[in-house]
Amino acid sequence: MRPSKRAADAMRAISLERGVAKHAEGSCLVKFGDTHVLCTASLEEKPPAWLRGTGKGWVTAEYGMLPRSTGDRMRREAATGKQSGRTQEIQRLIGRSLRAVVDLVHLGEKQITIDCDVLQADGGTRTASVTGGFIALYECIEWMKARQMVGPKVIRDHVAAVSVGIYRGQPVLDLDYAEDSEAETDANFVITGSGGIVEIQGTAEGKPFDEAELTAMLGLAKSGIAELVELQKLAIL
Amino acid sequence: MRPSKRAADAMRAISLERGVAKHAEGSCLVKFGDTHVLCTASLEEKPPAWLRGTGKGWVTAEYGMLPRSTGDRMRREAATGKQSGRTQEIQRLIGRSLRAVVDLVHLGEKQITIDCDVLQADGGTRTASVTGGFIALYECIEWMKARQMVGPKVIRDHVAAVSVGIYRGQPVLDLDYAEDSEAETDANFVITGSGGIVEIQGTAEGKPFDEAELTAMLGLAKSGIAELVELQKLAIL
Amino acid sequence: MRPSKRAADAMRAISLERGVAKHAEGSCLVKFGDTHVLCTASLEEKPPAWLRGTGKGWVTAEYGMLPRSTGDRMRREAATGKQSGRTQEIQRLIGRSLRAVVDLVHLGEKQITIDCDVLQADGGTRTASVTGGFIALYECIEWMKARQMVGPKVIRDHVAAVSVGIYRGQPVLDLDYAEDSEAETDANFVITGSGGIVEIQGTAEGKPFDEAELTAMLGLAKSGIAELVELQKLAIL
Amino acid sequence: MRPSKRAADAMRAISLERGVAKHAEGSCLVKFGDTHVLCTASLEEKPPAWLRGTGKGWVTAEYGMLPRSTGDRMRREAATGKQSGRTQEIQRLIGRSLRAVVDLVHLGEKQITIDCDVLQADGGTRTASVTGGFIALYECIEWMKARQMVGPKVIRDHVAAVSVGIYRGQPVLDLDYAEDSEAETDANFVITGSGGIVEIQGTAEGKPFDEAELTAMLGLAKSGIAELVELQKLAIL
Amino acid sequence: MRPSKRAADAMRAISLERGVAKHAEGSCLVKFGDTHVLCTASLEEKPPAWLRGTGKGWVTAEYGMLPRSTGDRMRREAATGKQSGRTQEIQRLIGRSLRAVVDLVHLGEKQITIDCDVLQADGGTRTASVTGGFIALYECIEWMKARQMVGPKVIRDHVAAVSVGIYRGQPVLDLDYAEDSEAETDANFVITGSGGIVEIQGTAEGKPFDEAELTAMLGLAKSGIAELVELQKLAIL
Amino acid sequence: MRPSKRAADAMRAISLERGVAKHAEGSCLVKFGDTHVLCTASLEEKPPAWLRGTGKGWVTAEYGMLPRSTGDRMRREAATGKQSGRTQEIQRLIGRSLRAVVDLVHLGEKQITIDCDVLQADGGTRTASVTGGFIALYECIEWMKARQMVGPKVIRDHVAAVSVGIYRGQPVLDLDYAEDSEAETDANFVITGSGGIVEIQGTAEGKPFDEAELTAMLGLAKSGIAELVELQKLAIL
Repeated sequence: MRPSKRAADAMRAISLERGVAKHAEGSCLVKFGDTHVLCTASLEEKPPAWLRGTGKGWVTAEYGMLPRSTGDRMRREAATGKQSGRTQEIQRLIGRSLRAVVDLVHLGEKQITIDCDVLQADGGTRTASVTGGFIALYECIEWMKARQMVGPKVIRDHVAAVSVGIYRGQPVLDLDYAEDSEAETDANFVITGSGGIVEIQGTAEGKPFDEAELTAMLGLAKSGIAELVELQKLAIL
Repeated sequence: MRPSKRAADAMRAISLERGVAKHAEGSCLVKFGDTHVLCTASLEEKPPAWLRGTGKGWVTAEYGMLPRSTGDRMRREAATGKQSGRTQEIQRLIGRSLRAVVDLVHLGEKQITIDCDVLQADGGTRTASVTGGFIALYECIEWMKARQMVGPKVIRDHVAAVSVGIYRGQPVLDLDYAEDSEAETDANFVITGSGGIVEIQGTAEGKPFDEAELTAMLGLAKSGIAELVELQKLAIL
Repeated sequence: MRPSKRAADAMRAISLERGVAKHAEGSCLVKFGDTHVLCTASLEEKPPAWLRGTGKGWVTAEYGMLPRSTGDRMRREAATGKQSGRTQEIQRLIGRSLRAVVDLVHLGEKQITIDCDVLQADGGTRTASVTGGFIALYECIEWMKARQMVGPKVIRDHVAAVSVGIYRGQPVLDLDYAEDSEAETDANFVITGSGGIVEIQGTAEGKPFDEAELTAMLGLAKSGIAELVELQKLAIL
Repeated sequence: MRPSKRAADAMRAISLERGVAKHAEGSCLVKFGDTHVLCTASLEEKPPAWLRGTGKGWVTAEYGMLPRSTGDRMRREAATGKQSGRTQEIQRLIGRSLRAVVDLVHLGEKQITIDCDVLQADGGTRTASVTGGFIALYECIEWMKARQMVGPKVIRDHVAAVSVGIYRGQPVLDLDYAEDSEAETDANFVITGSGGIVEIQGTAEGKPFDEAELTAMLGLAKSGIAELVELQKLAIL
Repeated sequence: MRPSKRAADAMRAISLERGVAKHAEGSCLVKFGDTHVLCTASLEEKPPAWLRGTGKGWVTAEYGMLPRSTGDRMRREAATGKQSGRTQEIQRLIGRSLRAVVDLVHLGEKQITIDCDVLQADGGTRTASVTGGFIALYECIEWMKARQMVGPKVIRDHVAAVSVGIYRGQPVLDLDYAEDSEAETDANFVITGSGGIVEIQGTAEGKPFDEAELTAMLGLAKSGIAELVELQKLAIL
Repeated sequence: MRPSKRAADAMRAISLERGVAKHAEGSCLVKFGDTHVLCTASLEEKPPAWLRGTGKGWVTAEYGMLPRSTGDRMRREAATGKQSGRTQEIQRLIGRSLRAVVDLVHLGEKQITIDCDVLQADGGTRTASVTGGFIALYECIEWMKARQMVGPKVIRDHVAAVSVGIYRGQPVLDLDYAEDSEAETDANFVITGSGGIVEIQGTAEGKPFDEAELTAMLGLAKSGIAELVELQKLAIL
């Protein structure tokens, strides 16, 4: 029995609200239950220095948590003077995941930065960030299309992410904090709309897992991501 | 004529929404028009080291802006590795303003941190932070009272803040970004519910101002803050 | 009765010594009683990057305290690796104050940096820095005139600063450390030679102040600054 | 055809040289072909602060690359003033992997730090670090046993790591730099001596991969790690 | 012929002014010609952590240059966020030199910090710092003796420093900036009142030097330091 | 009697192994007994910014210690976020020493960085770094000659370094850690193949030394360096 009473393959209530930021070229407030992340897309007319002259653009991401998004207040990273290893790991993951569905040549020599700021955390902030970050990115590309800055083929597919874990011996989908902090194994999957795997990160926190468990987790992840992609499609209708 | 068509003594639409953060002991989402700030209060059972053994507590504040809260994306302070002088100036102001209405002896050896994170900026983020921060602080003290952690006399008065400026030669109340970036003089007033002045910061950006203008600005500020205090009272009914 | 036995409207002994730095384009050792600040002006032939091509120049300031300028040794900011919020607040104030009397178009695409280093502190280091910094700036402009680098109209007015406070219920001028650490209200005024107000920063450390007290403090500040401007005029004869 | 002419399931020449550091409680110079990593284990008598009083110990890891371990010289992280996101990601992985086979209660209130410094890099530095780090850790525990500091059951199993990828459409084992920089998918597996999966990190650099490819990669990884575990056993005979 | 017309063995005008800092336990404004350094001694009642319980105290030094102490303005180290290698080298030298004449056991578990801040630089700032720092230290010990905090035997000898160089083929004493920037060899000697060598740092900037030149430089240094020690004795009469 | 039983003028076993780094333009693994330093030379086609357009090149050095190269583990400088004063002092010394034998005009507008990373420390790491760094530099110049990037006259002489000290009253050559930590005086000499002195750094850790001791130390250093230069010649045959 999950603490939230959800079935093993049930996700939390998901919401993807577009157009929430007055200034940004794209934005999405994504909620996976009590996990709330504000994603914005910011366009810069220049690519990073190492891409100048190549004809290619870039998509990157930054991630942060508000100090009291969590049960105990965390120290503000701006005050400690550096981003933690965890923060950097997550923002690298978000960037890689979104680039997997963008044609950087069709984007051209520009850079889009996806900022994912966690307003409230209850497990799964990185998977919510990828899922909502896709919508912010999509809006930004639409904004560019409306200004003839890019052609139609920049985004090649949907991409979304979900966490899966082994909780009390059972594979479960979309862990909240209560589960996450106790799970034997915690894994994150990033999968495209057409079912291609972009990223797997699986870690045994307690005892190691086996191939059968990996297969079960992948199955749950695929079904969860299919659902997320449907919600993305509704959000951008 | 103000860009927003407001009368010289009219504030923007103000909203103070309580209880918006699942984990925090107090919280408020404050809106001054398109300026939106999420304020949370976090209680620590210990005061800062320099107050241990004195019987007194402390209230402090931290301030941050989401990178794309502004028209152009700002660099994330966690990534640059330090808080700007402006950030530090603002968070010191918020802390001083809130401490002005707290009885630190009645608070006892505890610390409350008010985090003010700007989700969207359109001028006046520091005055919104003080005004909304008061509500978060108030909620936190109520939370403590409900647990018999403090007595009734911790908060001595209301406190709120508003900006005033000289825009095209005329004193105006509660500047938005369009006015703020062009104003000859920009001033922030922090005033208590009973009308005591806690802080004045007035800067001539263009030509110096005179005593008559100072008096006019103070008058506008007092009326604006009286209105804000009424809204605070409604919010905490 | 003030600890220094001064009358409420009496400043400390003020001294403005020009030309004290062998290498700098302008310099002034300013003393407000036991507060001693060495101000130098350094000319750079280029403006900051964001002004290139605009025809305008810039005046900026940096501030520091020697570690043992104070009663207890302070940690050296170069060793801690960052400037405190207070340091940044003060150097921003000095820069704004001096720019208020400089015609940046007549200065042309150059930058002048005013360094204010506190050799000994006894309250009022920021107001001494503005007052002495003006002399260093003036010397620098004279140095430039002598080399035909600027025309006659770069400096438009004098500017000086003084602190005022409410000490044991009474408004007093030019607080030393003994008063400053106990004052109910502490305010700094920056005012031009012609009496225009450039900056007001007033903070109630204890109980809030009212409009009558603000008016009394402004009156003291104006008389103090008139005196400082006379001393500036003598110094640059 | 692989650039190195190896069969798809062939690893590079592996060498695990124990006892190479005069001062350390454990050490191993591990070579995966031209990738050379010096691993040392350092024992501290105290656990990290957050474990004091719990009876448990800790194993952590740090990772670094010599500036000219790579084809182009990298900037020294000590000189840039921070560890990159990649460095932090790797050292967190090494620590998690080694803790997976250590009984922290049997270790007791102590901390072992595994330093993995890359002397020469040719792909797979993190997998070499886990594999050689295990030997350094093992030596350290033996050193402690010889001094009656721990009992026999601290290390529960072997653990090793290997990279696998999809190179030109084909799953291949233990990628060198020439392959790694061109592979469509790059994955790292950390697996115990008894075949339990501790960590999977798979990233599609080019086109997404599917479940069949994941299964093939896992198969290669298992066979590679079985071989590494045999070599570890020989090394610690 | 030296640029300053001095004889090869002539030092610049030296001045050692005691008691210049209102707050410090000891102080000295030292001038070697146009090189002016303000030295203060600050007493702390506790030694550094690594000496607690040993019965021994410590003397340490910090060094800084005001940004416009030099011909071109240097960036402020507090603003750049770190002390340069040169700064650290110099402050380590000053600390070692002063400790060479202090009986740390007789000092007892206390720490004295000597701050040497260069107000104006014209070559030889580190040698002036050692020479003037000794006076500040001496005053501090006298201050402690007057309060029965130490016995009579804390300071065992005088110590002073001077620079020597090979300038246009000739050994010369006490280089100013004009010589220093052109000298083939630049050396600093720290020597006690009784003639013991505490530190030699000699660097060939151009062609290497030989033993005869080293001997000549040592001779000049000894005579210069004998003179400095006489001046120290006069200063502390 | 020295702890190592060596005669006062006997160096430890010295080894200079060339060509140890696959990627670097030059390299040397140098051993002075149990002190092992890996030196690499990295060529950049551009000089540092301040030399552009002068026709001259530059040789610089960086130095680091692996965390467990020492008896107690040292904190990793990349993790602490800065290089210690000692590290900076040493890398500046290595750079100066190597530049003393390089004709920077013949090198042309290029930069060579010598990285010296201490794999194992037992005293004398800086002298081993200079001695081995010379071989890495030499190899790099040979590599450039083979590609017609420089002419024959870039390296003008050999250069090597050795430590000397006063240990239990007696001058001894090439101190290991056991001696170094107890020596009354510790000195490092950098001398060219033709016997010119490039650098002397001598520090009395305990009682000051006199001229006779300095002369004795210089004599030992000269004989030690003559031996090192012979070994360098053999290494580059």
